[in-house]
Amino acid sequence: MSRRKIAVVITARPSYSRVKTVLSAIQKHADLELQLVVAASALLDRYGSAVNYIEKDGFAIAAKVFNVLEGENLTAAAKTTGIGILELSTVFDNLKPDIVVTVADRFETMATAIAASYMNIPLAHIQGGEVTGNIDEKVRHAITKLADYHFVASEGAKERVVKLGENPNFVFNTGCPSIDLAKEVKENSATLPFNPYEKYGGVGAKPDLSKGYLVVMQHPVTNEYQNSRKHIEVTLEAICKVNLPTLWFWPNVDAGADGTSTGIRAFREQHDLSNVHFFKNMEGKDFLQLLQHSDCLIGNSSVGIRECAYLGVPVINIGSRQNRRDRGANVMDVDYAQAPIEIAIATAIQKGKVKSSSIYGNGKAGVQIAQLLAELPLQFHKTIMY
Amino acid sequence: MSRRKIAVVITARPSYSRVKTVLSAIQKHADLELQLVVAASALLDRYGSAVNYIEKDGFAIAAKVFNVLEGENLTAAAKTTGIGILELSTVFDNLKPDIVVTVADRFETMATAIAASYMNIPLAHIQGGEVTGNIDEKVRHAITKLADYHFVASEGAKERVVKLGENPNFVFNTGCPSIDLAKEVKENSATLPFNPYEKYGGVGAKPDLSKGYLVVMQHPVTNEYQNSRKHIEVTLEAICKVNLPTLWFWPNVDAGADGTSTGIRAFREQHDLSNVHFFKNMEGKDFLQLLQHSDCLIGNSSVGIRECAYLGVPVINIGSRQNRRDRGANVMDVDYAQAPIEIAIATAIQKGKVKSSSIYGNGKAGVQIAQLLAELPLQFHKTIMY
Amino acid sequence: MSRRKIAVVITARPSYSRVKTVLSAIQKHADLELQLVVAASALLDRYGSAVNYIEKDGFAIAAKVFNVLEGENLTAAAKTTGIGILELSTVFDNLKPDIVVTVADRFETMATAIAASYMNIPLAHIQGGEVTGNIDEKVRHAITKLADYHFVASEGAKERVVKLGENPNFVFNTGCPSIDLAKEVKENSATLPFNPYEKYGGVGAKPDLSKGYLVVMQHPVTNEYQNSRKHIEVTLEAICKVNLPTLWFWPNVDAGADGTSTGIRAFREQHDLSNVHFFKNMEGKDFLQLLQHSDCLIGNSSVGIRECAYLGVPVINIGSRQNRRDRGANVMDVDYAQAPIEIAIATAIQKGKVKSSSIYGNGKAGVQIAQLLAELPLQFHKTIMY
Amino acid sequence: MSRRKIAVVITARPSYSRVKTVLSAIQKHADLELQLVVAASALLDRYGSAVNYIEKDGFAIAAKVFNVLEGENLTAAAKTTGIGILELSTVFDNLKPDIVVTVADRFETMATAIAASYMNIPLAHIQGGEVTGNIDEKVRHAITKLADYHFVASEGAKERVVKLGENPNFVFNTGCPSIDLAKEVKENSATLPFNPYEKYGGVGAKPDLSKGYLVVMQHPVTNEYQNSRKHIEVTLEAICKVNLPTLWFWPNVDAGADGTSTGIRAFREQHDLSNVHFFKNMEGKDFLQLLQHSDCLIGNSSVGIRECAYLGVPVINIGSRQNRRDRGANVMDVDYAQAPIEIAIATAIQKGKVKSSSIYGNGKAGVQIAQLLAELPLQFHKTIMY
Repeated sequence: MSRRKIAVVITARPSYSRVKTVLSAIQKHADLELQLVVAASALLDRYGSAVNYIEKDGFAIAAKVFNVLEGENLTAAAKTTGIGILELSTVFDNLKPDIVVTVADRFETMATAIAASYMNIPLAHIQGGEVTGNIDEKVRHAITKLADYHFVASEGAKERVVKLGENPNFVFNTGCPSIDLAKEVKENSATLPFNPYEKYGGVGAKPDLSKGYLVVMQHPVTNEYQNSRKHIEVTLEAICKVNLPTLWFWPNVDAGADGTSTGIRAFREQHDLSNVHFFKNMEGKDFLQLLQHSDCLIGNSSVGIRECAYLGVPVINIGSRQNRRDRGANVMDVDYAQAPIEIAIATAIQKGKVKSSSIYGNGKAGVQIAQLLAELPLQFHKTIMY
Repeated sequence: MSRRKIAVVITARPSYSRVKTVLSAIQKHADLELQLVVAASALLDRYGSAVNYIEKDGFAIAAKVFNVLEGENLTAAAKTTGIGILELSTVFDNLKPDIVVTVADRFETMATAIAASYMNIPLAHIQGGEVTGNIDEKVRHAITKLADYHFVASEGAKERVVKLGENPNFVFNTGCPSIDLAKEVKENSATLPFNPYEKYGGVGAKPDLSKGYLVVMQHPVTNEYQNSRKHIEVTLEAICKVNLPTLWFWPNVDAGADGTSTGIRAFREQHDLSNVHFFKNMEGKDFLQLLQHSDCLIGNSSVGIRECAYLGVPVINIGSRQNRRDRGANVMDVDYAQAPIEIAIATAIQKGKVKSSSIYGNGKAGVQIAQLLAELPLQFHKTIMY
Repeated sequence: MSRRKIAVVITARPSYSRVKTVLSAIQKHADLELQLVVAASALLDRYGSAVNYIEKDGFAIAAKVFNVLEGENLTAAAKTTGIGILELSTVFDNLKPDIVVTVADRFETMATAIAASYMNIPLAHIQGGEVTGNIDEKVRHAITKLADYHFVASEGAKERVVKLGENPNFVFNTGCPSIDLAKEVKENSATLPFNPYEKYGGVGAKPDLSKGYLVVMQHPVTNEYQNSRKHIEVTLEAICKVNLPTLWFWPNVDAGADGTSTGIRAFREQHDLSNVHFFKNMEGKDFLQLLQHSDCLIGNSSVGIRECAYLGVPVINIGSRQNRRDRGANVMDVDYAQAPIEIAIATAIQKGKVKSSSIYGNGKAGVQIAQLLAELPLQFHKTIMY
Repeated sequence: MSRRKIAVVITARPSYSRVKTVLSAIQKHADLELQLVVAASALLDRYGSAVNYIEKDGFAIAAKVFNVLEGENLTAAAKTTGIGILELSTVFDNLKPDIVVTVADRFETMATAIAASYMNIPLAHIQGGEVTGNIDEKVRHAITKLADYHFVASEGAKERVVKLGENPNFVFNTGCPSIDLAKEVKENSATLPFNPYEKYGGVGAKPDLSKGYLVVMQHPVTNEYQNSRKHIEVTLEAICKVNLPTLWFWPNVDAGADGTSTGIRAFREQHDLSNVHFFKNMEGKDFLQLLQHSDCLIGNSSVGIRECAYLGVPVINIGSRQNRRDRGANVMDVDYAQAPIEIAIATAIQKGKVKSSSIYGNGKAGVQIAQLLAELPLQFHKTIMY
């Protein structure tokens, strides 16, 4: 019997980190053949090209698709998705996968979902059913309605996917595969095993990290994109004020990314950020190790909600981006306002690590998902359950 | 105060017929400005170009978008959607509508939904919440998850949209606007007021219609597209056998359309269809008048489920296309099999007209929808209700 | 040393026939690796899908690209080209060819030329420098200006390419590769070795071919596309009138193709064509054998100008499509007018075969081109020679 | 008689500056109606959005087209062109222009040329026939082969276009419209009438300009794009060394732009550029005034070859970008090498202004071109002249 061909489409650096253990598990599975498609911002330098890490990690790439349209507005997001559909159709037509896997809810993942479902290729969706209260939510639930199999990350997510009219027989709480990596990191990292300045370069000051440090990662929020500059400035002011060793990560490509990036760049020119170092990107595992040893994470990254819950790292979650996502005890939510951010940082440092939570999984998601991909009946025909 | 700009995107002839009264009501509304966008197969001759009727009906067209990719496979449907997004984004960027309206569930309507929702333009969806059990259902419910306002056609549909997690305050059972036209036809057509052969040409025999006649309209079913030729042949055999005056309508463009069309063409060459006339297309109103005076409608068109319920015309509904749609007492469901089709035709003729049902509306949908478009708060930010 | 990767893009059935010997020669060449890309109408059934022949002939296909936009207007031609560029860029990005080869002058070949030249991949053009006086000419000469190597089919073509400012060191009169096949046919076909009705089906009468027969192949002319129906009717009238056994071939996809196709279909319905059989398509070699044994070819196909010169088959060339192309003694040019066509047919039958001409090559083009592709310096940087 | 509709497609800031007087002349002409289409990098902020200037100058925009694909490689240039064709076809289909005008030779202008010529819309090309010896040359001459009217900028260009097989009756040496503006500036600017730091912001030092200053504008060279960083560093070193007041302009979007931009950014971080100010962009007229009062222009901009010839400003032209373009006595050509650049700067300052040359026009191009657009016969059918 020939092996099932599983096409996984990676469109951004964080998605790659998130599903790396799924890719490994597919690759190792005797009945599966991995067809890895790398597209969108995962190919672009200025957002920290994921493709380099992918190749370094030893995954063969079946096809690359450049489809990010440039522009400082939302039109570009729509067009990027349109081009993605056009090109992924050709890719699927040539690769002939048995199942296509799409990850999470970035706008351009819709291209994967539409191409596969329109071509009657069974579609698996990783990380449906979550709630955030932004444009990602439209995308995420729409993809649920296009997908045939659902590998969700929490019980709450599972319930929601079933309420959305999906057949419960095809909704699986595997936990989030990002926790697989968090588990490995948690179990094996007594100390930070690399020097981030040496390994990743970056720009800015090089504060001493031995007494603890902050990590910042703040993305623009799609439906507030005209405010992204203002929002980032609030965080910059707060960080400037607390003046602790800080490692700051640039945002992903997105409508509004330029607001955030411009904001950071302008602030740097006008202020002396003598305790802040900026990184463009970092391998997922190294980033988790960095978090594991940090005092807290600040911003609006889903890493704070997810991996940090497992790691027990305190998180200052700013603004609406992770709005309604299920969260563990490690998260403090604050508005876009300087004082509350400063207070939350002080609190986090004072309290220190919190108890590990398996709300987003127990670290075996990759293997479980691969096994399901090997066993599930191939199907692309479904109907709403009510 | 300036009028709200309402962009309605029409992508196929039947969609135009369905929402014609909405377009009129928008055009007449003092607070609204209609921006009519005509795209996809609505522009193509070989499927009965809707654009001619639109212009004849006096609607000004704000933009035309050719985006149908040619091909006898499902890849073409995906690509058509991708091109649609790419181009509709530009159209919306130039027209700057306050609300975008998308109709029903054809695959390419997803392009309208994605372009609008990604560009933060409030999206209204007409005819969500229905159940059919085919690929259209994936599209339909995915669009529900992208839309901000829902104008549904029945109570069942309304319940489903709310179950899908939508805010009940923005789900309105306006009935289907196609019933508006059916109402007008029902109230004003004592006899068939035109000669279809003269007015619409077409090919084949010209049977005498004065003693009653059958109407056939059978589309390919997307997820069974390799069977579309076999399916159409069964119907052709049955019609050939009952040998009553029959008016047959060609199918719309769709993956598999070529199977259906080829089947009809081949059958015509090999058989003497002395009682069958073929039409490429017909204005919506004329088609309803034709149905109103027919013995029954045969095939899988949604017109049978919807307008015929109101008109009280018996319908032989073949196969899975309208699978789980709510239906009135006028519908007899049969499989793709010759004998059952023949028996159902005999039954329908014997019983005659059935009682009018308002299951899909009471004939005032157009005006209601326009009024809602004028009054609803403009919003594009939503979250799932559970 | 690794073999040079040569990507040849085939976009239509006639282009495939034309360069088949080039493909074979590349495949056989020890220093070359063939990357065959099949796109546009070469993939579509309704124009006689070339892809089936390609696979039957044993060529492996590296990528397929569906990019034909449907529409009865010239916009579709432009859009097909745009989509072609978008997708071929991805294909080239993934295949990483050392040289890209584009064939002749169909509108969509421009997509190949632009994708390759913009990506700094050396571009070889087969059949530049010819003159026809239609839109093809704009395309053909524009491609010459994008190409780095020119494999032309006649001395006249070579002179023109050099006059266009190209470096004479990279302009090679290899003859047309279609003559390679004509040579083989001419040397090996004492009698027609197959029954065309049995082998190719088709529709219409099945006239006896043993006493001679006519072959018709008439394409729409791009810049006269609104006249294509009128033009085809003139030819149909003439063929109807002379009433000799006739084998008629459907036209290729093209803006206006529908005018030609519709004209043929309508004429068939209204006339008794008891001596005419219609074919959708035929393998290149079989078609040449059919021509070799025919009385004459009628229409506007370039086969009449090119292969028939070598075969010595009389040709009635109608209208402007081959306007200024160099031609042998076998060609009689006539206008779109019934009487002259009838007279020319009578003359052709009376005179019989003419002397073979090598104006378009001596039958060794394929091997020569492959050898040049293996030897030429790789370059994509050029400047006009004056 | 209705006015002729002239669609001009502007895809970049410098193209807009170049043809501004043509746009004005069309707008003022009684028999013409201007349809201005703004696309590609002309819409993007990070390259100095031309669209703002266009609107400020009072031109109404008929359509905007976002089509720049993001990417640090040449694939993006090809794809940008493909998307441009797709979208411009729709734009032309909706605007129905009588003539389309395309400007110069940037890669994406090919999209305008293909969309128009494939749709049988007469195409006018401004600035064909020039020689530069880079990828632009492929584009430029290919567009000449697609265009129906040629408005060239010099006698040398006219000769070349005619040699390319174009009908001399449709090749007009109107001079370059950029000289129209240069003429106005030359005649009316006794002193620099604005403070560039105040009016345009920018970053870096603010050297005193009253004793003279240098202007630098260096673009990446498409077919050397991997070297663009190295090349820009040589210039940076030289400017750093001569240490005179310098105004530096960022490059346009282009494959390789990131190499140049990155090079500048990195150099700034590592060196003290106390005499250099950086501008993102400047209105065309202000830029010419700045040049008019400068000591010399350094880099590879065509402004140096063209407007500076008329203004009599010395130019240090670096590298291959303007390779074979006709030039006046004001130009000194140097290689990518620090010492020669430094020497040339010294020489330029010592010699001072040179005599004005009308090699690229006498300042009346805009009015002449508008008049030709009003009078030329509408045609889209041509054949090579040999």
